[in-house]
Amino acid sequence: MRALVMRPGSLRVENRPVPVPGPGQVLCKSLVCGICGSDLHLFHHAAHYRQLALDAGVSSEVLDKGVVLGHEFIGEIAAYGPETRQTLPIGQRVCSIPFLKGDLESVAIGSTPLVDGAYAEYFLLSEELLLELPDHMSNEAAALTEPLAIGLHAVNRANFTPDSTAIVIGCGPIGLAVIASLKLKGVETVIAGDYSAKRRTLASDLGASLVVNPADTDVFGAIPAGRAELPASVFECTGVNGVLGQCIDSAPAGSEIIVAGIAHGEDSFAPATASAKQLSLYFVMFYTSDEFSAALQALADDDVNWRPWLTGKVDLDGVARAFKDLEDPDQHAKILIYPHGVPAQG
Amino acid sequence: MRALVMRPGSLRVENRPVPVPGPGQVLCKSLVCGICGSDLHLFHHAAHYRQLALDAGVSSEVLDKGVVLGHEFIGEIAAYGPETRQTLPIGQRVCSIPFLKGDLESVAIGSTPLVDGAYAEYFLLSEELLLELPDHMSNEAAALTEPLAIGLHAVNRANFTPDSTAIVIGCGPIGLAVIASLKLKGVETVIAGDYSAKRRTLASDLGASLVVNPADTDVFGAIPAGRAELPASVFECTGVNGVLGQCIDSAPAGSEIIVAGIAHGEDSFAPATASAKQLSLYFVMFYTSDEFSAALQALADDDVNWRPWLTGKVDLDGVARAFKDLEDPDQHAKILIYPHGVPAQG
Repeated sequence: MRALVMRPGSLRVENRPVPVPGPGQVLCKSLVCGICGSDLHLFHHAAHYRQLALDAGVSSEVLDKGVVLGHEFIGEIAAYGPETRQTLPIGQRVCSIPFLKGDLESVAIGSTPLVDGAYAEYFLLSEELLLELPDHMSNEAAALTEPLAIGLHAVNRANFTPDSTAIVIGCGPIGLAVIASLKLKGVETVIAGDYSAKRRTLASDLGASLVVNPADTDVFGAIPAGRAELPASVFECTGVNGVLGQCIDSAPAGSEIIVAGIAHGEDSFAPATASAKQLSLYFVMFYTSDEFSAALQALADDDVNWRPWLTGKVDLDGVARAFKDLEDPDQHAKILIYPHGVPAQG
Repeated sequence: MRALVMRPGSLRVENRPVPVPGPGQVLCKSLVCGICGSDLHLFHHAAHYRQLALDAGVSSEVLDKGVVLGHEFIGEIAAYGPETRQTLPIGQRVCSIPFLKGDLESVAIGSTPLVDGAYAEYFLLSEELLLELPDHMSNEAAALTEPLAIGLHAVNRANFTPDSTAIVIGCGPIGLAVIASLKLKGVETVIAGDYSAKRRTLASDLGASLVVNPADTDVFGAIPAGRAELPASVFECTGVNGVLGQCIDSAPAGSEIIVAGIAHGEDSFAPATASAKQLSLYFVMFYTSDEFSAALQALADDDVNWRPWLTGKVDLDGVARAFKDLEDPDQHAKILIYPHGVPAQG
């Protein structure tokens, strides 16, 4: 089969054997797989993560195989491994949280050399974790389940009141998922900020009630009069160092800051400011299985205006170019990979 | 009357007119007043805070008067101002949250030149905020109401389960108040760490179940086997820069960190670590009126082993020396000021 293999500095389509499902596992044909911001991060820091893996005792032989990325996938059941119940028919479309159940713990799919992801014609899932896709649901909508679940998890951590103001800092993939999730939760006042015009448009499309360019307008200054002094629910979705400190400086007293972006290295802030305002900071990551299922359901019910979110479709040969294109926030938001070729229609 | 006046670099007893209570105010004879860590901080940074006040538009004439510190006070009603209900008799012992009600907002007592505190023979309170002391309650126990309320507020912010492990980093005034409050809340596993032997003894006296010297033993490593992987409730009570970052590095996944110490300037930490562990950080300060009343009640009921906490008694002439003594954590914890002279007994 054809698979896109990532190594430090290279993204290359190679021929690989079709994986063989072990006990409890299912072989899936990879229908669609979204490109996640974390995939780009892993590619740009591939040498660093290879060194971390070496330090953790992973052999260079394993690492030299490279990583097959891809954790925002939709598959079609192609074959069952041993010790499976086989309640779903061959050909059934499915998705799953991107983990493969192991003897001791689950292992992430598509982010390390240990378990290959869906940037390939076929990949493995655990039968126990499969979620059936409704027939009426498009592959494209279903492929957004994983990123939407990230947003739902962040939003579920917040403590809203009927008067809550939500502030979304950054309208990249995480910010857009947060905005869509805030809309699902019925939060009415959602103020979002991003420097990119394209992303601001997407933020409006997905449900932000007010979108500003931080270059022109202070996001916190855009809180409607009468609410400016009330505690707000602030979502830090940039993962850029220094932005959390700015949120701490600017948030109204009593606010909560849900840190959904992941900044690397050391970051700094003024703790006395956080103390004087009695701020709460919630660092969030991933989602629960229930949140993943809820995201799938919301997309199946067409409760999310997801179509503008999708800005590109590529086959495996187009992924390297797509990685470059995604560096420009004014061009793309979510690009989907079709490992068996981009369909002519839709 | 005699009052201890703080100016940059000096703490001096001066003669001041007895204050005249305004509408709604009560003149109190100052019976006992504790020395708070924040008093020491204000003294050590007096020039800095004077400059901040000048920048905020306070006149140098007002600032030159100096600050009469003291917000952990017990008073005796000496006279009523106009527009008071006078339901308590002259001579009644009282305490209050350290704020004076104003037309627009309450003003802190004993931390700025605007409202003098209780390091003086007399001071003013708002009648509306007075709390009566029970006759059986000692002045000394009552003087610990304010610091205990700080601990109660921090502990009330935590989300305990029956299996909760509480970790208290630093056993200075705030750490001790947190330990006493954890005991009041019925939290059984309380692990406290401090470099000072004296403070470790006090931590045990106030109810810590295990006390370690971080120079010898990692505080987080002292979590009992079987609980080491469970989320913990961590109380950062040092206010020392860098310690919050250490808590983030060491806390079990899913933990909450209640930041009760106040670090100044910029502080740094590794946000990706906080994200990977999905930590919650609660920055806390002060207390509510209800928490203040609850602290008073707990001390009145002798539910707190407060006696070891008190390590010194001075009159106004002894305050400058007490400020020096408090710099050595192995010598003192709480020193009380008796503006009318230290009583011969008790």
